[in-house]
Formats: sequence, C-alpha cells, structure tokens
Amino acid sequence: MMEHIRTPKVENVRLIDRTVSRKATVGTLYLSATHTIFVENNPETRKETWVLHSLVASVERPPTTPSGSHLVIRTKNFQVLELLVPQERDATDIHASLARLSRPEKYSELYCLSINPTANKEEREESWSFLDLQADYRRMGVPNNLWVGTPANSEYRVCDTYPSELFVPKSATPPVIVGSSKFRSRGRFPVLTYFHQDTLASICRCSQPLSGFSARSQEDEQMMQAIMKANPGSEYIYVVDTRPKLNAMANRAAGKGYENEDHYTNIKLQFIGIENIHVMRNSQQKIIDIKTPSMGDFLWGLESSGWLKHIKAVLDAGVFIAKAVAEEGVSVVVHCSDGWDRTAQACSLASVLLDPYYRTMKGLMLLIERDWVSFGHKFSHRYNHLDGDPKEVSPVIDQFVECVWQLSEQFPCAFEFNERFLIQLRRHVYSCQYGNFLGNSQKERRDMRLRERTYSLWPQLWKDRAQYVNPLYRADHTQTQGMLRPNTTPYCFKMWKGMYNRLEKSAPPRHSPADLLTAVREETQQLEQELTNHQEVAPRGTAHSGTKQGIQTPKSKMKRPGRPAPSTGDGSVDSPPHDYRSTQRGPPDPAMTLPLGPPKGSDPDDLSSACSDIESGVIDLSSRSSSGGDDCKDPESDEAIYCPAWSGTRGPDTGRLPC
Amino acid sequence: MMEHIRTPKVENVRLIDRTVSRKATVGTLYLSATHTIFVENNPETRKETWVLHSLVASVERPPTTPSGSHLVIRTKNFQVLELLVPQERDATDIHASLARLSRPEKYSELYCLSINPTANKEEREESWSFLDLQADYRRMGVPNNLWVGTPANSEYRVCDTYPSELFVPKSATPPVIVGSSKFRSRGRFPVLTYFHQDTLASICRCSQPLSGFSARSQEDEQMMQAIMKANPGSEYIYVVDTRPKLNAMANRAAGKGYENEDHYTNIKLQFIGIENIHVMRNSQQKIIDIKTPSMGDFLWGLESSGWLKHIKAVLDAGVFIAKAVAEEGVSVVVHCSDGWDRTAQACSLASVLLDPYYRTMKGLMLLIERDWVSFGHKFSHRYNHLDGDPKEVSPVIDQFVECVWQLSEQFPCAFEFNERFLIQLRRHVYSCQYGNFLGNSQKERRDMRLRERTYSLWPQLWKDRAQYVNPLYRADHTQTQGMLRPNTTPYCFKMWKGMYNRLEKSAPPRHSPADLLTAVREETQQLEQELTNHQEVAPRGTAHSGTKQGIQTPKSKMKRPGRPAPSTGDGSVDSPPHDYRSTQRGPPDPAMTLPLGPPKGSDPDDLSSACSDIESGVIDLSSRSSSGGDDCKDPESDEAIYCPAWSGTRGPDTGRLPC
Repeated sequence: MMEHIRTPKVENVRLIDRTVSRKATVGTLYLSATHTIFVENNPETRKETWVLHSLVASVERPPTTPSGSHLVIRTKNFQVLELLVPQERDATDIHASLARLSRPEKYSELYCLSINPTANKEEREESWSFLDLQADYRRMGVPNNLWVGTPANSEYRVCDTYPSELFVPKSATPPVIVGSSKFRSRGRFPVLTYFHQDTLASICRCSQPLSGFSARSQEDEQMMQAIMKANPGSEYIYVVDTRPKLNAMANRAAGKGYENEDHYTNIKLQFIGIENIHVMRNSQQKIIDIKTPSMGDFLWGLESSGWLKHIKAVLDAGVFIAKAVAEEGVSVVVHCSDGWDRTAQACSLASVLLDPYYRTMKGLMLLIERDWVSFGHKFSHRYNHLDGDPKEVSPVIDQFVECVWQLSEQFPCAFEFNERFLIQLRRHVYSCQYGNFLGNSQKERRDMRLRERTYSLWPQLWKDRAQYVNPLYRADHTQTQGMLRPNTTPYCFKMWKGMYNRLEKSAPPRHSPADLLTAVREETQQLEQELTNHQEVAPRGTAHSGTKQGIQTPKSKMKRPGRPAPSTGDGSVDSPPHDYRSTQRGPPDPAMTLPLGPPKGSDPDDLSSACSDIESGVIDLSSRSSSGGDDCKDPESDEAIYCPAWSGTRGPDTGRLPC
Repeated sequence: MMEHIRTPKVENVRLIDRTVSRKATVGTLYLSATHTIFVENNPETRKETWVLHSLVASVERPPTTPSGSHLVIRTKNFQVLELLVPQERDATDIHASLARLSRPEKYSELYCLSINPTANKEEREESWSFLDLQADYRRMGVPNNLWVGTPANSEYRVCDTYPSELFVPKSATPPVIVGSSKFRSRGRFPVLTYFHQDTLASICRCSQPLSGFSARSQEDEQMMQAIMKANPGSEYIYVVDTRPKLNAMANRAAGKGYENEDHYTNIKLQFIGIENIHVMRNSQQKIIDIKTPSMGDFLWGLESSGWLKHIKAVLDAGVFIAKAVAEEGVSVVVHCSDGWDRTAQACSLASVLLDPYYRTMKGLMLLIERDWVSFGHKFSHRYNHLDGDPKEVSPVIDQFVECVWQLSEQFPCAFEFNERFLIQLRRHVYSCQYGNFLGNSQKERRDMRLRERTYSLWPQLWKDRAQYVNPLYRADHTQTQGMLRPNTTPYCFKMWKGMYNRLEKSAPPRHSPADLLTAVREETQQLEQELTNHQEVAPRGTAHSGTKQGIQTPKSKMKRPGRPAPSTGDGSVDSPPHDYRSTQRGPPDPAMTLPLGPPKGSDPDDLSSACSDIESGVIDLSSRSSSGGDDCKDPESDEAIYCPAWSGTRGPDTGRLPC
C-alpha cells in the first residue's frame, strides 16, 4: 500500500475538537501503510491519535477556507476526526491517499494478509485451533440417533456457501439432500444449527424455496418431514420466514418465495417482518446522522431512523424461535431469502436466548463462528472490506450485537461479558486485522488459505478477557440458567450510547457500577485469601498485620491491571477533549505490535501525559518526522519496531511505546 | 368519610390483569375510609390489593357489558386497576363512593388530620424536630458578615407565602426590604436560599418585578445592589428568569414582567425557557397516555409529549445557576412569575449540583423543606389534595424529582439514595398520609396547627433508609465531592421507566446491579469483621471455624433485612400478574399501622403466599367481610388494629399482619 501514500507527513495540522467549542491542537500528521497518525506538538503531552485505514468509512473535503483546507474523516466506528491542513496541496494529497488506502481493491492489500506469518507459525496455528465447532455440536448432543453428520457437502459440492460439515435428520437420504438443495436459493437446504437437548426440538436454517407460484419439490417436502420426525415429541414444525410477508410474496414472481402450506405436511408458516439489508443500511445511516441540538430533533431522529424498530424485529424473531423450541418443544426451520443475513440474526439470537453457554465469552465466539462465519454470512461484502458494491453493505451483524447488548441491559447478571466485549467484537468484524471475517464463505477462506496466512481473533480476545468481564455475571444465577424471556415492549429498547455516541462515550463515569463491583469483588477475594492465610498462620500464634490496610484503601484497588477501557475524564463536561482516540483499544496485532490502550496498572487519568493512547497497530516505517526528542518513540527510525513478546510481557512498564 | 361509603363490600368482583392477556382473579372488594381493598378468593393466596383513596386520580366507568360493569381506577402513581363488578348497582355505588372519597372537600377529611395524635404526643413532636432548617443555613455558613437573618417577615407581615425566618444581605435595610417586597408579585422579594462558601456567591430567589413597561422601584434596585455587594469577589449578578422570554414579555402588559437592565446596575439577565404549569400538566398527561404497541408509536409519543424536553429545560436552569456560582463566583437571583414553581425547581437543582450534602437522604429532605415547603410551593393546589381547581394542578415537583433521578443515572456513585427513595418521596407529596405537604405555605400550615395534629414524613423515611441506600454511593468519591457537571445533550435523558411504567417495573430483575453490590459489600464487611475477630482471637491460638461458610453462601446474604422493594418475579414474561400492588410500600402510618411490603427477611418469592403485599395504611374497621379463617387478618374485627410499636419491633416474625 506504500505506493498510495502521496505524502507521508504534514506539519502544522490542526486537529479540531468537535466537542469542546471547536478547540484545536496543532501537530503533525503521518500517513503510514496502515494508520493515519496525528502527533500533537505540545512537548508535554505529545498525544497521539491513530486511525486504522481499514476502519475509515469516508473522507470528506469541505470547501477550502482562508485558514486552510478541512478534512473530515469518519470511521466505521462512528468516530469523526476533523483536520485543518494549512496547504491545499497537502490536503489534496492526504485526501487522495486516504481514499485509496481505506478502500483496498484486493484481499492481498489488507494488512493481515501482507504480513509474513511464518515467523510465528506455531502461534498462528494455535490461534486457529482455539475454537472447535464440532466440539460445540457435541456439547449440544449432536450427532445422536436423530441427527447425523452428512458428507454431502464435502468439497462444497452441494452448496458452496455452506460449511463442509453439516448435520441433517438421520432419515434424510443423499437424494433428499440433493433434491432439497436444488429447490432452494443458492442450494442452501435445511440443516441443523441448534439442538435443544431438553425438548429434542431443533433449529434448522435454509434459504427460500424456489416455489414461485406453484412449483414444488418432493425431496424438499421429504426433508421438512424428516426434520419434523427428528423431533419425536412434536407433530408439526414452524417454518419461520423472517421477511415481511409482502417481500416474501414478491419473490414468487422471480420463481422463489415461501413454502406452500398445502404442499408441506404439518408445517406452520410464520412471517416475522425483518426488513432487508437496504432498509437496514439506510436506517443505520440515519441514526448515525442524528443531530442532537434539541430533544425534539433527537427523539424525532431516533423514531424516524426506524433503527430501534428494526432491532426489536430482530429480537422478536429470536424470541419466537426460542419459545417454540423451549416452551412448545416444536422444531423450527428458519429462512429469509438467501438465508445468510436475517436467518443468521434470528438463529443466533435464539441460541443466545435458549442456551446460557452462548452468554459466555467463548460461547458467543463459537456462536459467531457457527451461525455467521461457517454458514456463509458475507462478511467482506456486508462490511465493505474491499472497494465493492455499496448496495451489498449492511449492518447485519451490528444488529445482532446490539440485540445481545439490549438483552444484557435487561438481564444484567446473565452475560459473562460486558459492553466493551461486544464493541470490540464488532470492531474486528470491520477492521480486517485478523483473518476470521475475510471473504464471504468457508470455501473462500479455504481457497485463500487464510489459516496459513493470518491469525485468528478469538485467542486474542480471550487473552484480554479481564477487561471484558461483566462483574455482575454469576454462573449460578437464575438469569444465567435456562432461557431468557426478554420484555420486547418498545420502551425496553434504548439507543446504544456506547456504540453510537462514541465521541462523548469515551469519557464515561470513571467508576461505572460494574467497575465498582469488580473492585469490591476483588476486595472480597483478597479478604478471603487473607482470612485463609490467617487461619493457617494463626495456630502458630502469628497475627497478620497490614491486612486492614489493604481493606482501607479501596482507591488503590481501582487501579488494577485489567482495568477496563481507557477513560479520560469523569463523564462531566470538563473531560479532556481527545475522546475519539481512547475509546478503541484493539487487541495487539499478532506481529509488529505496539502497546495499546492505557498503560496497564496505571491510572487512566495519566493517559493524557502518556504516549500510549493510540488506537492500535503498527508504526509506519516510512513516515519521516523531525519530531525527535520524544523519549517514547522515534518516528524517524527506519527499523520496524517489532515486539513479538509484547502481549506476554506487558505491564506497568510497557505502557509507553518502545523506544 | 364513612358517610360517603355507599357500599362497604362487594363480592365476586374480578380484578383484571392488564399485563397478562387480561387474566382475571375473583375476589371481594372492600371500601374503607382510607383504602379500596381487593381480597382474592383463592384460599391459598388470598392476595390483597390496597389502593389509598388519596392516591386515586380518576375512576372511569366504561359502558356496561353482559358480563358486568367495568371500573377503571387510575392512581396518581400511574397505576391502573381494572375491576369487573357483576351488578351494575354495585358498580354505580362504588364509583360514586370513590369519586367522593378520592376528592376530599376540606383538609379535615384527610386521613392524617382525622386521627387523634395526642396518643403519641412525644413521638409526633419528635417527628417534627427531625429536620432543622436553621442548622442547615448554619452548615452553609449563614448568618455571616455578608448575610443576616431579618425579622421583617415575622408573623408573615411582609409576605404571607414566605417563611417567617429569612436571610438578606447585611446592607439591606427594612425600608429596602419592604419597598422591594412591594415591587414584586405576591410580595416575594429577593432572599437568600443558598450560600456557596468557597466562592461567597449566593443564590437568591424572588418573584417577578412589577415593572410593566416602565415602572421601577428604587428599593428593589437597592436590594439587587445589596445582593451584588454581598459577594465581594464579583462585579455583577445574574438575574435568571426561568420563563421563556416571550412569556416574561407578555407579563409586562399586566404590570409585571422582568428586570430592565437599564434600571438595575450590573445585572445580567438570562432567560431559561421552562414552560408554565399548564404546558407541564398536559405534557405529563401525554407521557402517561403513551401507548406502546409499536416502537414508532412509543418514540413518537415520547417526542410529542415534550416531557424530556421540559426535564432538560429544568436541569439546564440548575446547571446555569450552579456554574455561575461555582465556576464564575457570581451570585444569581432566580425568579419566574410567582417564584414558587420554576424558581423552586431551578434553585433546588442548583443546590443538588453544587453541594454534595443535598445528594444524601437527609440533605435532600432538608432541601425540599427549604426550597419547596418553607418557600411556599403550593403543594395542596399542585397535587390536588382537595377537590379544587384542576388548572392549578401541575407536576412541578415530579420534574424536580425526575431531574435528580436523571442525574443519578449519569452519576451512579454520587447519590446516597436510590430510585426507590425518590419514588417514595414523590408518592408522599400526593398521599396526604403525613402533614408535611398539606396546605400551600408555612403560614397555612401554622394556621392549621399541623405540627400538633399530624406527623412528619421525614423520620419515617429515615427509619426505612436501609431500603433506600444506593450501594454505589461513596462519600469519598470524586463524583460525591464538589459540583456535578452533567451532560445535558438530549440523548442523555431517558424515560423514567421506574416511575412511568409501574405496571411492568414492579417485576424488576430480582437482583439488580445495585442489589448485588449491596450483598457483596455486606460480605466484605462481614469478612472484615471476621478478620478483626480473628486477629483478636488468633494470638490466643484459637482458629475461627465456620467463617468460610459465611462467605460461601452469598445466596443467603441476598435475603437480608432491609431488602429492597418487593419483587414478584425475575423480570421475565412469566412474572406473576399482580404487579401494581407490590410496587408500593408506603412507610407505615404513624398510628394504626400494618406492616407493609414483604415480610422482612423473607424471600420476595414468598410474597404471593403471604398476606403482606399490601400497599400501605390502615385496616378499615367498617368493612364487614365473611372471609374469615384467614390466619393473617380478620377484616371482620371491629377493633382497630393498632401497632404503635410496630416499626420498632418488626422483624421476620412481624412480617405478617397482626391477628
């Protein structure tokens, strides 16, 4: 990508703070192969702002003003960076460079595919074996005498957007599978995604049938019959068409559509009414664009965006399926049109509602690997990884992640992870720093040999789990056990400030209730430990001193390793202006990594004087700066700053950039 | 009031559950002098629902149906009770009785004035000395060499809606006071309400000047000058007119209006734009009426009600004043028209923002006593204590309470109390169970001799404080110290579900984050105690056993005395239907009291089989029931059930009604 950098460095650029009456700081802007980096001139702070190119959504150039040319960078994380560049020529160069850098044309231009992973072959291979989908099927009791694995799709022969390993009803013969596949859009025939051991009911997924106005397929009908029979306790199945009925009917004209209840025995058809990707794309754009000068504008904007209405529709789909399975003991076949967007949303939400395991960090990772990654959700198209068709882009997984967040607000003790986990997860769907979400199907990822060329995100998230823990989570809690039954009355949904109001959000109350609870919990554990020690020591007549001291300094407990996301203020209006930079702390890149986020073990208040509140990623080797004298980092260095051991050794001392 | 009860008892009434698909329970309805009581027939549960007459907002009678006559009782707490009465005649009688009982025509009909308080003279007198307003002025350093007490209003000679004890600038002579008083609506001249010791700036309050288009008063100008001079560090004062400027201008035609900046030296006039009581009344009605079938309806309803816009305006007023005082060190004179509605809101909110003391339970009580009760907020008119002019009714203090709640959501560690405290406080503004809020001014209350005839609410709230504690509150927290600087961007405001969605809210997640934290805190304290014990014991060589046991049973810790509000479900859709009854747990009446809320020390799940989830209040002596055999309570008894010692002796054993 280096050849697209027209100017590696521009001095005397102003970074305009959009929160605090447009205050500006002066500094130097660097363009690297992976990041835009702004380094403040102020020798005391030298704050840095890093923006990953792959997270840049757009770069605008408002008309030039006497004071210079403005550049407005909007990120896929809903952050906004406004720069004032003195020379118009520089602004043109930056604009053109960023426009190209942020829109790679082929996968090989993506950072995660441009590194040499052989350096850490073992670590890379290990990263990909972190999750085991087959083990999760076994966990839910599959295969069994009702559901069996089928080799039908090995080498992706029957359906090239499905995984190669699939589970089908035991009675589904190969001709039934192939015949059903031929009667479904993109060959996506009904296969198992979740098996509910208590009721023996299952969730299957597929695409719409090629039924048009009258077509039918004996094999497809047999497949549905086989699914029903695989649930001995039930005499019918639900077919959930997650589309609005009108949309489904319109598809009939194109030879597609929905199941004719006269042709299929014992199915109950249910439409849910989740809108299509185009409606969702426009809706999210509206919620991003909401102006908040007045309450009326805000509430009107929220209502007219339709966003929460769509979130509710997606959650309602999950609730319908989960109730059918757990309460009625009836199996459900879910589809939309192609079965990779709304179907993924509905099935994965049903799993979250039904199975406490998917409310843990690892469980949610597995769920995304299964219902989204393995079943061919088109990540690269939907999240615009390459410069592609803008009509393919849509925030499909954003909606799933937000539904999980809305659930976590209603059931604060039911989820092992916190909001930061969800935000980080979504970020990496867009960031292309790991191989997990590249391409649009398992076959594409195999053909790209991603497992040999990239790292998996999951072990990195897991390594950082201390910062993602929800302190309210209790594995033995009633909320944690069994099915969640959320209230989906409209007033139970709220705008996700943590996601959409990043600018302000980055200065949250320094001690959220959850953080406080974590601290108190730690105190408790320490006390228990001390008491245990004491009991061991006591018989020997030694009284522990200093234990009370630990108790009486709860403040010091708040400054602990694993401290959650950086915070630069106490949430009040005088919080520091540099908000957008510190909200993101990407996990380190597998190679060529710099420390991210605030120095561990340090007080977040120290952030402003440390050089470490960077977003993520690597130091650009080509940016030639004259800003030397900074003891943190020398941008003039020609050497790659390469810290393979970083994630193992970080601590209070590694909070600053390596010198 | 007994004479207004046309029928004391109706059998085979159905209580219709509006949440769970209109399920109904059959029982007997009793009308007492103070409550409507519904007792379920089901001999296993015999659930009771008590509704205080003084909290009834309206009783509607939809057209009679073949199955009987419907009665819909709406309470001032936003709860709805729907009854189906078999005989139309009974429905007519109940309707007529309730219409009268819920609209007393004179104060003496109010329950708190119909009891005989001599029985507990000492307790009553003690209750009124619980708070000391003068001590709070002393706490803020008043009187001092800038502000002095004035006898001008003793016997309410100058202003009959002001308290008799007032503080004015030392340089304000009696002629200036009297002259200024004559130039202000209702004689409400500028007096001190808050003194900020750090900056020496003050908050004064008054009503609008009688300036019309050109009138002026030398004394009033001198009074403002005196206020400015009482702040040695500042060369001007702000005059905050909390009204929209247009409203203030319109008042000039009636000879009132606002300060002319040309006549007053060194004042800066600032309009805030809080709407008048009629706009607020209509707005609250709209938010109560919001239907929530669809997201669009809900959000549209929320926006078009304007409620959150008004809440923001009130909070903005407080923020402006607090910033002027704490950040600029400039004194502020606040008024609206009469200076007893918007002025009370703005001044008291400024105090909450400025002074951590007013974020404690006692502090908030004192603040309400000062800025609302003593300064003549017209409680009886605004909250419809007697059958009066509906145009005088307006949710003025509701808005103040909600602003405090919105602040507590932004600063979860800054307030000593929780949401329940605020809801309970507001409830008693309406309930007339205590004497605090009767009448419209200090003079009226004195003339009614309320201190001799009623009890004060405050010691009762204080006695119950265990259930009102915010476990996140930390006196040493940065949020707790100094001024709060809230973000008042529109998206920072949310609909107060706990207040307005009582029906659903009453089944909150059983373990809210705050409740959990309380439990963990208690564990910590217990551990500390055990550790201390251990350290004392250890040198003697005795190891404590059983301590770990206490740690390992956190579940048992959750069932503690002082357990917060009753909860009848885990917040999921299958929660019990009897929501409206268990949300309210009024503190016991000072006399003739029954235990309220769930039995202390018992699990809230046991609620449905206990007889104690009643709303509040007394047992009616006249209701003649044949529901005997219930070991909890015998409604046939002719004896007053009188438990003066109740609040002192309650415990797990006193959780049931006295027999």
